[in-house]
Amino acid sequence: MVKQPNPARRSERSRQAILDAARELVSEVGYAKLTIEAIAARAGVGKQTIYRWWPSKGAVVLDAFLALSEAGPERSMALPDTGDVAADLKTVMRATVAEFADPAFEGPIRALNAEIINDPALAAQYREKLAGPVDEAKKDRLRSAQRAGQLAADADLDLALELLYAPLYQRWLLRTGPLTPDYADALVEAFLKAMNPA
Amino acid sequence: MVKQPNPARRSERSRQAILDAARELVSEVGYAKLTIEAIAARAGVGKQTIYRWWPSKGAVVLDAFLALSEAGPERSMALPDTGDVAADLKTVMRATVAEFADPAFEGPIRALNAEIINDPALAAQYREKLAGPVDEAKKDRLRSAQRAGQLAADADLDLALELLYAPLYQRWLLRTGPLTPDYADALVEAFLKAMNPA
Repeated sequence: MVKQPNPARRSERSRQAILDAARELVSEVGYAKLTIEAIAARAGVGKQTIYRWWPSKGAVVLDAFLALSEAGPERSMALPDTGDVAADLKTVMRATVAEFADPAFEGPIRALNAEIINDPALAAQYREKLAGPVDEAKKDRLRSAQRAGQLAADADLDLALELLYAPLYQRWLLRTGPLTPDYADALVEAFLKAMNPA
Repeated sequence: MVKQPNPARRSERSRQAILDAARELVSEVGYAKLTIEAIAARAGVGKQTIYRWWPSKGAVVLDAFLALSEAGPERSMALPDTGDVAADLKTVMRATVAEFADPAFEGPIRALNAEIINDPALAAQYREKLAGPVDEAKKDRLRSAQRAGQLAADADLDLALELLYAPLYQRWLLRTGPLTPDYADALVEAFLKAMNPA
């Protein structure tokens, strides 16, 4: 008897091929010129396969990033918590700097950010599905530092996250300076001084 | 004798009409869909008039922003310097918050930022012609505060400007929170704490 291919496994293979194709193509041609046709051709599936799972181009691209993030170092999302907030944040910011210096990672994220800027609906989806949960994990680490008396107990954690991450985000996005481990450390030190409980 | 129109004045009127049209259209349709044809039609001039003065769409749009900036509150670029660095920076950041809350201002700047993210050459022009000189004026104010012993003398002024402005930039660009006078003040206070000479 001829063995049939497993439909669930084939389905997962197609899904992965579509997400990989979307991520590659958005880096290569940009979001504006990306088409469902091109994703289907690159992934070796029919257009209808894509439309069966995703309602729009934006939805495919966003899932492609979610998959990247799930496969990456932020898989569990929780930040390290050794009790030494300076060391832990330096570890995290150095890893972030390394990610943004990696073309395979930063290319697609750059394309997604350019799109989000002009598309409030995609921005809201991005916040809800990706940025929001990651920010909550970061705030958990800051709350732990607050409990340990290392950060001001009344600090505004939204502002705190912006102080820590926005300089790096802007430097990366506008290409205004080098992203180095020293830069990561300097940011953490300025952040801790600003958030000092004293 | 029939009076001839003054060619220099007519030229300046056309130039201004082209810059206004570019700024309006980039807000309305986005940079990607903006064409020299559409700018010419809106401005009531021929395409050749535009190409006589500017080599590319990017060059017209960038000059449109430079004109906006020259006509705006940053005309002189120098920041206020009353000797009270906290008060002066709050004045500046509150004005910046107000600008980014104004659709007539923020729409074109948003379109330009989305383009800059994907276009390193335009980003370099933007830095050289617009962001660079503005940043130098901001650093002059910080240097004055350093001389007055209000900011750490060894502070990295590039990092300092990022700490002060990038949180606002990110919040505006990603629409992640409200831009209010209180937010401007909170940013200045966190910044001064981070840069404290003590």
